[in-house]
Amino acid sequence: MNKKIYFAGSIRGGRVDADLYMRLIAYMQQTDTVLTEHVGSSKLNLMEQGRSKDALIYDRDTAWLRGCDVVVAECTCPSLGVGYELAYAEKLGKPCHIFYDRTKTQLSAMLTGNPYYQIHPYEAEEDIYPILHELLKQ
Amino acid sequence: MNKKIYFAGSIRGGRVDADLYMRLIAYMQQTDTVLTEHVGSSKLNLMEQGRSKDALIYDRDTAWLRGCDVVVAECTCPSLGVGYELAYAEKLGKPCHIFYDRTKTQLSAMLTGNPYYQIHPYEAEEDIYPILHELLKQ
Repeated sequence: MNKKIYFAGSIRGGRVDADLYMRLIAYMQQTDTVLTEHVGSSKLNLMEQGRSKDALIYDRDTAWLRGCDVVVAECTCPSLGVGYELAYAEKLGKPCHIFYDRTKTQLSAMLTGNPYYQIHPYEAEEDIYPILHELLKQ
Repeated sequence: MNKKIYFAGSIRGGRVDADLYMRLIAYMQQTDTVLTEHVGSSKLNLMEQGRSKDALIYDRDTAWLRGCDVVVAECTCPSLGVGYELAYAEKLGKPCHIFYDRTKTQLSAMLTGNPYYQIHPYEAEEDIYPILHELLKQ
């Protein structure tokens, strides 16, 4: 309850799961605060902004990572940014929960092979919500 | 000359650029040592091995990251593992050179917005080799 959640999902890596991100964010927002609400938006600008403007995104997102209570990552769609964010969160000692659809992808060994992460493979979206419910009430 | 290079490229995230990785590795091997030669192989097992076996991959790759002189990442194909590796290398202070085909993808703001990385967008494969030549002779 009232946790600050950093939700991580692919942006420039691909938006195939954007609607799923939106539903997961809406679910978590019933009880908690999602700092990265924009990750589920259908109106995101997906283009590079140049290094100085992208630095504003980097600075905002890393500040949110430092300020969050927990990271929830949806990793079905491969993403350089999500991989970076998970490593950054690990460095800070933030709890990290990784979800991915095991029927659609094979997760990187840099995540599955790293005992730091709590990994939740799923086969259907409805499997995700009870797990989210449990981890958010802790 | 005689640098130990950690070459990072997508494995489970997708092998669409595997032949490019192979050519880049072969180029660098003319003068230097590529620790991650397997990233260019056409015979890689792309399946998850379970957490304990994947931990052997994680332990090997992070040991190579700690032991390398420089990281060269080809980031056109999004990859959770490559994002993780770049963050891990940044934490260690290893020089990181990121290449990507700007005609095919938009790079993550977690990379473009991070002044730590040296980023080399390219439009044709032949643009890569002179840059690699320069950075390896340093």
